[in-house]
Amino acid sequence: MRTRSFRSVVKNYKAVFFDAFGVLKNHKGLIPDIANTFQYLDKKGIPYYVLTNDSSRSPEALSKWYQERGLGCITTDKILSSGMLAMEFFKTKVTNGNAVAFLGTNDSAHYIETAGLKTVSIRNLDLNDIDHIESCAFLDDEGFDWNEDINKTINLLRKKNMTVVVANTDINYPVNKNDISVAVGGLADMVEKILGKKFIRFGKPDAQMFLLAYERAMKDIPDIKRGEILMVGDTLYTDIIGGNKFGLDTALVLSGNTLPEMARIKIGSTGIIPTYVCESAVIEL
Amino acid sequence: MRTRSFRSVVKNYKAVFFDAFGVLKNHKGLIPDIANTFQYLDKKGIPYYVLTNDSSRSPEALSKWYQERGLGCITTDKILSSGMLAMEFFKTKVTNGNAVAFLGTNDSAHYIETAGLKTVSIRNLDLNDIDHIESCAFLDDEGFDWNEDINKTINLLRKKNMTVVVANTDINYPVNKNDISVAVGGLADMVEKILGKKFIRFGKPDAQMFLLAYERAMKDIPDIKRGEILMVGDTLYTDIIGGNKFGLDTALVLSGNTLPEMARIKIGSTGIIPTYVCESAVIEL
Amino acid sequence: MRTRSFRSVVKNYKAVFFDAFGVLKNHKGLIPDIANTFQYLDKKGIPYYVLTNDSSRSPEALSKWYQERGLGCITTDKILSSGMLAMEFFKTKVTNGNAVAFLGTNDSAHYIETAGLKTVSIRNLDLNDIDHIESCAFLDDEGFDWNEDINKTINLLRKKNMTVVVANTDINYPVNKNDISVAVGGLADMVEKILGKKFIRFGKPDAQMFLLAYERAMKDIPDIKRGEILMVGDTLYTDIIGGNKFGLDTALVLSGNTLPEMARIKIGSTGIIPTYVCESAVIEL
Amino acid sequence: MRTRSFRSVVKNYKAVFFDAFGVLKNHKGLIPDIANTFQYLDKKGIPYYVLTNDSSRSPEALSKWYQERGLGCITTDKILSSGMLAMEFFKTKVTNGNAVAFLGTNDSAHYIETAGLKTVSIRNLDLNDIDHIESCAFLDDEGFDWNEDINKTINLLRKKNMTVVVANTDINYPVNKNDISVAVGGLADMVEKILGKKFIRFGKPDAQMFLLAYERAMKDIPDIKRGEILMVGDTLYTDIIGGNKFGLDTALVLSGNTLPEMARIKIGSTGIIPTYVCESAVIEL
Repeated sequence: MRTRSFRSVVKNYKAVFFDAFGVLKNHKGLIPDIANTFQYLDKKGIPYYVLTNDSSRSPEALSKWYQERGLGCITTDKILSSGMLAMEFFKTKVTNGNAVAFLGTNDSAHYIETAGLKTVSIRNLDLNDIDHIESCAFLDDEGFDWNEDINKTINLLRKKNMTVVVANTDINYPVNKNDISVAVGGLADMVEKILGKKFIRFGKPDAQMFLLAYERAMKDIPDIKRGEILMVGDTLYTDIIGGNKFGLDTALVLSGNTLPEMARIKIGSTGIIPTYVCESAVIEL
Repeated sequence: MRTRSFRSVVKNYKAVFFDAFGVLKNHKGLIPDIANTFQYLDKKGIPYYVLTNDSSRSPEALSKWYQERGLGCITTDKILSSGMLAMEFFKTKVTNGNAVAFLGTNDSAHYIETAGLKTVSIRNLDLNDIDHIESCAFLDDEGFDWNEDINKTINLLRKKNMTVVVANTDINYPVNKNDISVAVGGLADMVEKILGKKFIRFGKPDAQMFLLAYERAMKDIPDIKRGEILMVGDTLYTDIIGGNKFGLDTALVLSGNTLPEMARIKIGSTGIIPTYVCESAVIEL
Repeated sequence: MRTRSFRSVVKNYKAVFFDAFGVLKNHKGLIPDIANTFQYLDKKGIPYYVLTNDSSRSPEALSKWYQERGLGCITTDKILSSGMLAMEFFKTKVTNGNAVAFLGTNDSAHYIETAGLKTVSIRNLDLNDIDHIESCAFLDDEGFDWNEDINKTINLLRKKNMTVVVANTDINYPVNKNDISVAVGGLADMVEKILGKKFIRFGKPDAQMFLLAYERAMKDIPDIKRGEILMVGDTLYTDIIGGNKFGLDTALVLSGNTLPEMARIKIGSTGIIPTYVCESAVIEL
Repeated sequence: MRTRSFRSVVKNYKAVFFDAFGVLKNHKGLIPDIANTFQYLDKKGIPYYVLTNDSSRSPEALSKWYQERGLGCITTDKILSSGMLAMEFFKTKVTNGNAVAFLGTNDSAHYIETAGLKTVSIRNLDLNDIDHIESCAFLDDEGFDWNEDINKTINLLRKKNMTVVVANTDINYPVNKNDISVAVGGLADMVEKILGKKFIRFGKPDAQMFLLAYERAMKDIPDIKRGEILMVGDTLYTDIIGGNKFGLDTALVLSGNTLPEMARIKIGSTGIIPTYVCESAVIEL
């Protein structure tokens, strides 16, 4: 697979959208020397944004993670998460006074609460007192007992018909060099199949994630066209097909999900074709 | 199932999005008295738009159909089709000079050509001369020999890796009171499964259709919020879930796909919950 | 939905296959008066067998459950379970000295061990010592920590390529009048999707379950034909389609999964057509 | 991928099951020198059988094809096809006097008629005269107009609820070195999805195909055990997983569907593990 240097690619764009995991960070922390890339982009005056399917934390908490590791430039306003879309959904769709039942940590729900909404952890929910529960959210794969609380979620949804939101469409995520863990999107797929219901999913490759970022970019460069933006990601099925469909140019990086030796085979067998392939998003200064 | 009169519902919104088939028209022609609805909306100053997964004709041709039947108010600028999204995609993604191979009538391709793109019907394609073919489109279920040309499409995509666009996600459509026909989205699903590839689909319930219409509405009412728009449709899996997810309020009408006696069961079993249920979109004047 | 009395149906057959849950028993225990049915069949000299997708216990333990409730006629040799097929599979496919890693209770594994095979609970497995693990089995939804051990299973299967057996294809089961629980088949579906692998599944509607029972019936009535056997079940997707396909006649009973008010709609919408529909398998004496 | 010579593998078994396409023949005709293999097996006294998902012709017609090419040993009784299972099904399930509507050539239906059943080609069916149609069969991808007759099939199944049989589960088949064609199983998948119904499928990997062959083998070697039979095939998803599950040993050959350079990757990614991998089923004499 012939690859291009990231610098030679990115210099031709007016703005850049980055996926987080596998591009900017991995299980060990920041990708080494990724700071160079932001130094370069800042110098060139090319704005950048991080698009993540992470609904376990607020943009503030996500931003703080980068800042603590020396990437002060990844401020809250640079972060666009699927959790933000879920929060917007609940703000418009949940009646005042009613509550959202959720699977996840209290941290993951805290963000929804900042919008003035009530939340109840499925763990603490009394299935005999659900009149005020208007919607249900899959936020994070932690913060509950899988056995007991997934079954409880199923029975809640059998007792009362309500809209269910999956705020992270990923079905798994890496926990270290070799191991992965089921993500909340995988649990949601299982529950959806058992119930025969249709949930609402937010996150890449869905257009709403790209729209959210595009609207943010237009605040910085009002007349920017979609074709002037580069989406950088490590996953064909989310970052690349979603970016292509939204009209962005796309760069697949081989520092995460898609292993260098498999990139050509995967592109050929899926028909998901990035505009460019780069070893990583790191720029040698 | 308790239903609401469409008038009592629609009067509270600043703009209306209508699905076409099963809402404004059916296999016999216009839904009787649907003209009343547009007379009412014009009088109230509520703008309206038609969102259709029809990629077999241009907005001009779609608009003409209504005008010939006395609905002069459905002008070209009121029509938003999945074919428009496909055309936009090809405009940004196909290299100048290259061509799009398509399944469909010449009419369906004509619209793409108006954007300056070259097209070649799969029927006329020589599989030994495909260097200039850069993309492939499923546009319409007519205009080709199903047996020969679907197999030809499969072998084109095995010979050369390219992006495939499905410009109509519907898997079937009604042809008369009792009968349905496979739509091009159904053929695309079969081909995708056989090839193991991933196609790009445009059309409801995808957010891009709703975004296209929302951008159009903002030209008429610059500060309109999503929650001030009503999406009216007959299909839970496209119109209603798509509208809900995009943040619109939704009205399911029982004049098409979803039969009155099944509406309650379907809403309960799918968990796709419209804001309102109405017998039809017709307003008694 | 016009139903037939079970007596008028069953008297015309030479043997009967019963599903267990929803037919002979439910969450409260035995279906009231089901003993009558076996008294009738014994009197008529019609042999019967119980076909169950239950892999959590041995035929001995399953039989004991009936015997403790007064149904002495349900002896071990009357029971055919998907767990028996899994055990047969491991006996022929696992090399002497190697082990099967399993999700489930120790009880569920005990049955495999009686065949001389070694088993290791995923819970107790050391992922750094897996040379002797040759196969993996989903046996029961209890006996492990869902969060930790499902993720451990996924990482075991990433570390070493091995055949995975799902000994219970059901995706959920009822725990009381209103509530259901995820069954081990549902967990297996999720893991299979995350890994992109293909597991081997035993249990109805697969032909091997019916073959196992048919071979047992032929021991009692050597020249019995498939069409002389009645399969009685409460689930269209397992009991009825599986029985139909294997060449048996089928009776859907409305005492379990398929509610009386939905039977006609479900048969019409699925196209899975039982030979008969009966209120229950109970015979009034 | 380390491969074994087919001779060194096959000599240890008491009987052999062969897949046809990609193992014994390809688009050009017989695999060169495959006659050697049968000469060897005959000499060793190892009986063999051909298991094929081909429902377009009768066992007689399939056998004749081999005989015309010099393989006189592939007699009718050596052939087990999914079409035979479909015929058995109709014999027990279709009421005397009623008819089976079919998609396919007249040849494909001729076989069903030899069992005394009436058939009607969908092409010739009058949708206003369907009282006598009791079942529907997908037999072959030829012999009908795809556009018109697939839609006609859909509307037949909407008008009248009946059991639908898919007599060939393959979704595509090779027509020459480079090209493939949609098989009738692919068309059936599309129709099933559009209707939301559940069809009955015959053919590998389903246990009934292997059972049919096993029963045939037991006529030649009454006490043969499953583990003493070798299943030879070129496709992991049908031949190998089906053989493994039925308790046979399995040999994947690289002369067909599974390309040598991809075999290791496919086995690793699917978790479908053949007992052996051989270049082909040809034995050098």
